[in-house]
Amino acid sequence: MTVHFKSVAKLVGSFMMILAAAMLLPVFTGIYYGETHVITSFISVMIPCILVGFFLYYKIDASRQRFNARDGFLAVSLCWLLAAAIGALPLTISGAIPDYIEAFFEMCSGFSTTGSTILTDIEKLPKSALFWRSFSHWIGGMGIIVLAIAFLSGSGIKGQHIASAETPGPTLDKLSAKYTTTARSLYMAYLLFTGGETVLLMLGGMSFYDALVHTFGTVGTGGFSTYNDSIAHFDSPYIHWVIILFMFLCAINFNIYFIAIRQGLKTIFHDSEFKVHLMIIGSAIFLIVLNLSLNSNIFGGNGTAVVGSLLNDDPDKTLHWNSFFRLFTDSTFQAVSVMSTTGYMTSDFDLWPTFSKFVLLGLMFVGGSSASTGGGMKVGRIVVMAKLARRGLFKKTHPNSVYLIKMNGQHLRQEVATNITNFVFFYFLVLVVGTLIISINGFDVITSFSSVLTCLSNVGPGFGLVGPTMNFHIFSGFSKIILALLMIGGRLELFTLFILLSPHYWNSNKA
Amino acid sequence: MTVHFKSVAKLVGSFMMILAAAMLLPVFTGIYYGETHVITSFISVMIPCILVGFFLYYKIDASRQRFNARDGFLAVSLCWLLAAAIGALPLTISGAIPDYIEAFFEMCSGFSTTGSTILTDIEKLPKSALFWRSFSHWIGGMGIIVLAIAFLSGSGIKGQHIASAETPGPTLDKLSAKYTTTARSLYMAYLLFTGGETVLLMLGGMSFYDALVHTFGTVGTGGFSTYNDSIAHFDSPYIHWVIILFMFLCAINFNIYFIAIRQGLKTIFHDSEFKVHLMIIGSAIFLIVLNLSLNSNIFGGNGTAVVGSLLNDDPDKTLHWNSFFRLFTDSTFQAVSVMSTTGYMTSDFDLWPTFSKFVLLGLMFVGGSSASTGGGMKVGRIVVMAKLARRGLFKKTHPNSVYLIKMNGQHLRQEVATNITNFVFFYFLVLVVGTLIISINGFDVITSFSSVLTCLSNVGPGFGLVGPTMNFHIFSGFSKIILALLMIGGRLELFTLFILLSPHYWNSNKA
Repeated sequence: MTVHFKSVAKLVGSFMMILAAAMLLPVFTGIYYGETHVITSFISVMIPCILVGFFLYYKIDASRQRFNARDGFLAVSLCWLLAAAIGALPLTISGAIPDYIEAFFEMCSGFSTTGSTILTDIEKLPKSALFWRSFSHWIGGMGIIVLAIAFLSGSGIKGQHIASAETPGPTLDKLSAKYTTTARSLYMAYLLFTGGETVLLMLGGMSFYDALVHTFGTVGTGGFSTYNDSIAHFDSPYIHWVIILFMFLCAINFNIYFIAIRQGLKTIFHDSEFKVHLMIIGSAIFLIVLNLSLNSNIFGGNGTAVVGSLLNDDPDKTLHWNSFFRLFTDSTFQAVSVMSTTGYMTSDFDLWPTFSKFVLLGLMFVGGSSASTGGGMKVGRIVVMAKLARRGLFKKTHPNSVYLIKMNGQHLRQEVATNITNFVFFYFLVLVVGTLIISINGFDVITSFSSVLTCLSNVGPGFGLVGPTMNFHIFSGFSKIILALLMIGGRLELFTLFILLSPHYWNSNKA
Repeated sequence: MTVHFKSVAKLVGSFMMILAAAMLLPVFTGIYYGETHVITSFISVMIPCILVGFFLYYKIDASRQRFNARDGFLAVSLCWLLAAAIGALPLTISGAIPDYIEAFFEMCSGFSTTGSTILTDIEKLPKSALFWRSFSHWIGGMGIIVLAIAFLSGSGIKGQHIASAETPGPTLDKLSAKYTTTARSLYMAYLLFTGGETVLLMLGGMSFYDALVHTFGTVGTGGFSTYNDSIAHFDSPYIHWVIILFMFLCAINFNIYFIAIRQGLKTIFHDSEFKVHLMIIGSAIFLIVLNLSLNSNIFGGNGTAVVGSLLNDDPDKTLHWNSFFRLFTDSTFQAVSVMSTTGYMTSDFDLWPTFSKFVLLGLMFVGGSSASTGGGMKVGRIVVMAKLARRGLFKKTHPNSVYLIKMNGQHLRQEVATNITNFVFFYFLVLVVGTLIISINGFDVITSFSSVLTCLSNVGPGFGLVGPTMNFHIFSGFSKIILALLMIGGRLELFTLFILLSPHYWNSNKA
């Protein structure tokens, strides 16, 4: 068994055509806003991209090659890296982000739905460039290849071989036997959320452009804004709560919606991952609100907790909370934003008390639920780990008993459990090695660590020098590339990249 | 099956008598140095301790109760908590550590071989009190109950039920079928190291008292010194290297020595844990030396890396390294000290560059090898996790293949693997919850996190406000108790405490 390069090339070709087609949207935006220079930059990238894609897809004869899981890993990795590498070109050519490494970082951040930025002043960029940057969140949120599968079902490429490489959530197999159908259903839900949020944001007074780009950032759980103050730019609790709602909805397991439709709303509370997701976010909000309240001057505390206003035109950037509602809104917003791995901000949580910072750091590890657009380790994995640990305790005192672990009524296979513990091992391995590499920059401990964690979990902002009011411009070019690869690695849930780095992958004769 | 309280009480009784006997040593020290007040404090605790112990051991009839693994967990936990609780009494009664909570913290730190201290000025304490404090490292290093087993073989209590609660290293079963014999062999090796180091330190010019207490701190991988400057007090590379040697020797798997004796020195390199241990410590030293060298002014760097001298009488506490030998010695000392979870210091590593700090933080997680006196997650567990992860990768592309994991030529049972992944889950769970609780004190992120990590891994010093030149006096009484319990929890490798907290333990009828 060897890697089927022809099949891989065919898939990459189809993807390149889709990528070029996606660039039509920033082109239209450019036409609307009269940004001629940006339009030509995009078109100069689109044309060769379509030509190469066309050649790969139609001129390569892969009919004798069966596309298998092994090929999926390579194809998926290539497509994601190409998306960022090609997507960065118009930004550099147009001069929006002159440094190509920075543009590559920005597009990796976009497609991986991380939302970390190297831009020191976002608002001076052309609107069409910012549109493309945010649109990459939308594409990346559902998965680049899922998109290809949904629209190219006749290509002879089996969806499940792609899916295991792109979104290996533990419960993905539940939804439907036919992966193409599943992909389409997922996109339907995704489109519905996109439309819904855009309308609701416009009702709150946002322009169509603002509503659309911030919807892309929300439903993809990305976090790119077109404003330096992120969501704090919009001084409206209504807008904050609409975004909270959709960040939450897109970070829970999408299968929940299909279960709700088929079996009724009540049945979703039988899902263990969903229950734990609710429990985690609920506890996090409660703890942060409690911690901030006790430290604020609202209830007669010493008032050390501050809003940490992100507003540029705010002369006192450390305004104290003056109402419990504002404190509650900001706490909920940041907790949901971090757990969903969106990374939008209404408050400078780097100024929060240490306890609240640790709650957010914890949420950065956990991330969203499986089969959602959120990143991180995923709630489902934590649930399985906890169940395994509980069985371990029981077995210590009842060594001869039989104790089967169930997830949503189904017996958990040993293979799935092993997969999950392996993922956790790789996650921490990458975190440790990544942090060591990034720490060579010489920044403080919390900056170095949180920058790696936030990229790996696809959150966006971190703490210290990469906190909510800061950006990733400070890092060396080498570090930017490492962080960009960590984002892609995190989005593909690590296995895909590790498999390609494993000698077994390329050594075809060893079984 | 219910808990056999009578058997547990009997074991606790025997342990209390041993504890009282151990207090004879500080009493002798007190007599030698004429510290009358401390002597009476110790004796006033020893007498009731012996009486209660005698009553429990000889007057309770446990002949109808079989002591099993389940009872072992309770007995072991009780003994460790009692050791600290009773051991702290003379310190408070004599006025050496007037606050009982602080004395309890100090003795938990002693018995668990952590070495974190709440003392702001160690040197003003009476010598007999300091001797007791260091002697607790020596007792705790090999295991409190192992001591009881080694000397009370006629008590009818089976060693293996204790061992699984006290030192559940993955390879403990290898050494010998008879646990009592094993316990005695271990103590022989331990005594040999103790004697050897004491002599070597005295040859370096230390007094008998200094040599003995620092040997206790080394072979137990504890870290208590009788000087505020820790090992930096002794400005002798010879002494530093002797301590490096014994910290290393006591943190590797003790079985290695028996294998070496039986099968020859070369065979120890067949042991995978030992090989990885060498690899980790070697890489850590290399990376720190490289990082510090590039940052020092020895090789024409910008000279920002500093010795961080701990010497109190040193007017410039941030002396630059003036020789590569000094830099190499300090780097090796701190790397070995942290990985062995001893926690002795010759240099203020809190002033080191971020990269070196992260290397040390990584070593704090790893800790020593299994069946050593070191703490942390243990090298053996990391080896198994890595082997599982490698198999996982292979299985992703070769799903139908058979891939058996071997540890030192033996097939790794699924049960052992599950035990290890469960341990890692509990380790991180405790780390997260502990950090959240400690962060309520309001200290910075790195102080809060590293204080919990260093206590849980039984290292000693942390970073920031608990760095090498600081101490744990700053925490609230509540936090001190939590940290003290974390040390005991870490020493007993968590399972024991979690089992006691599990409802299944007390609910005897559920199978």
